[in-house]
Amino acid sequence: MRLTILGCYSATPRTFTNPTSQVLEIQNHLFLIDCGEGTQVQLRKYKVKFSRINHIFISHLHGDHFFGLPGLISTFRLLGREKELHIYGPKGIKEAITLFLKLGDSWTNYPLIFHELESKESELILEDSKVSVRTIPLEHRVYTNGFLFNEKEAPRTLDAEAAHRYGVDRSQFNNIKKGFDAMDKNGKLIPNKKLTHDPPKPKSYAFCSDTVYNETVVPLVQEVDALYHESTFLESEAHLCDRTKHSTAKQSAQIAKLAHVKKLILGHYSTRYKSIDFFKEEAQGVFSNVELADDGKVFDL
Amino acid sequence: MRLTILGCYSATPRTFTNPTSQVLEIQNHLFLIDCGEGTQVQLRKYKVKFSRINHIFISHLHGDHFFGLPGLISTFRLLGREKELHIYGPKGIKEAITLFLKLGDSWTNYPLIFHELESKESELILEDSKVSVRTIPLEHRVYTNGFLFNEKEAPRTLDAEAAHRYGVDRSQFNNIKKGFDAMDKNGKLIPNKKLTHDPPKPKSYAFCSDTVYNETVVPLVQEVDALYHESTFLESEAHLCDRTKHSTAKQSAQIAKLAHVKKLILGHYSTRYKSIDFFKEEAQGVFSNVELADDGKVFDL
Repeated sequence: MRLTILGCYSATPRTFTNPTSQVLEIQNHLFLIDCGEGTQVQLRKYKVKFSRINHIFISHLHGDHFFGLPGLISTFRLLGREKELHIYGPKGIKEAITLFLKLGDSWTNYPLIFHELESKESELILEDSKVSVRTIPLEHRVYTNGFLFNEKEAPRTLDAEAAHRYGVDRSQFNNIKKGFDAMDKNGKLIPNKKLTHDPPKPKSYAFCSDTVYNETVVPLVQEVDALYHESTFLESEAHLCDRTKHSTAKQSAQIAKLAHVKKLILGHYSTRYKSIDFFKEEAQGVFSNVELADDGKVFDL
Repeated sequence: MRLTILGCYSATPRTFTNPTSQVLEIQNHLFLIDCGEGTQVQLRKYKVKFSRINHIFISHLHGDHFFGLPGLISTFRLLGREKELHIYGPKGIKEAITLFLKLGDSWTNYPLIFHELESKESELILEDSKVSVRTIPLEHRVYTNGFLFNEKEAPRTLDAEAAHRYGVDRSQFNNIKKGFDAMDKNGKLIPNKKLTHDPPKPKSYAFCSDTVYNETVVPLVQEVDALYHESTFLESEAHLCDRTKHSTAKQSAQIAKLAHVKKLILGHYSTRYKSIDFFKEEAQGVFSNVELADDGKVFDL
């Protein structure tokens, strides 16, 4: 599982910082999460293959998370895309994108499928044999969801060496792979678990931006391998959180601690601060395993 | 009169090229012409003061001329703008921008005034004491206008030395400045023209993008100081012009020649070409004074 940060600063694109967008590579999927203005340029800069993106998740319809989407959708057409593109985002996103395309008398040569979200409860929005995606309802100035990406447990794989050791004949290997127990030469039952490798532990990633401090997310992100949680402000500006519905670095760390996550990744920094190192320092007062997102940074999870 | 090219490539923003946007400084106005995705970042890069932009002209509603506008409008709010912002563009632009702001439960603290265009005839859309702006109807896949920016002739200014030479008393200077003739010591009438300097010749700039080859623009851009005319293709790809409603470099030069403009500036290059120098070469076969627009280039006209 690999996370590439395309942009992680709040409010407006600037010469050297970009608004929110990230790419999660998980089980051969490339999921695009949020799409601020300039995301398509960041995708090119970090050599993400446009054709591998089939699912885009939009947390909310503020410009710094969304204004890059009309352009990206148009560019997909210019690149000759034919495959379906699925867009998950708040109700209204279809009308907005459709209007922009219509005004330009434009269209897509590929099926553009909108999955509009309006539930205030966490819901399963995508599932296949290897991965599932659920919403994480957040509390912001407009309807907003985070997203929880879970790998599914892979099947157990045959341990040929163990089978040999237990004296299990090769003719039973196919059944062992299917999950059945086997017999040794003497007709003794050998449990499947002893003849197979444990699969790798499935990974999980939670994206929570934008949101005010909100403990209702804690059970949803429990023990995830990595939690990206917005930290727009430091505690010195905590008084701005209520009105703007954002969090401080310390508050993000409190969520990470309560949820026993393995790693906390901070982002969505206000551009008022001279250095983002302050965010890490502040969060580490509460939770130790903190990393800072930054544009172009890659996390191998 | 100074023109700063923020972006002049067609279709999509890329790492080192930007879609159409330019800033025209004319008589203390800073006019923004078109606003492709990433324009606000280009404005920052080339140190254009956001607060000096009060008028934005949008030629048509294709993404590479327009998708930067919602973000720029939002950024103006974040920067605390209070002054009116006037947007001139095709009918539908107000609905599109308003929908994007509404979906984000956003607003502007400043008056945002739309001037929606739908006439197929050239019309005067802005005029003050120093400058006028007219539309130049173009022929593209959607409703499109170019824009003609004209300085007005400045008042004649007193030539004190000539007045002294003609023996005209200082008491008449105020009247001379107002345009009246004067008398010398002997009561002889001295025409105003002999007592005043000719004002500088007013400058003019025409922006024509996007358009197929279309001679109806010739009378509108007659003898302008600079004509920016799109040249998406070279003649080797002329067969693409009809379908896409674009021009070749040679065709742009033909318009420049027919209209006896002083300088032709080429832009809106297709990104299929390895070098933009080919465009200049091709155009100079027809018209000599050709310059190439490029991102960040400044023309002092």
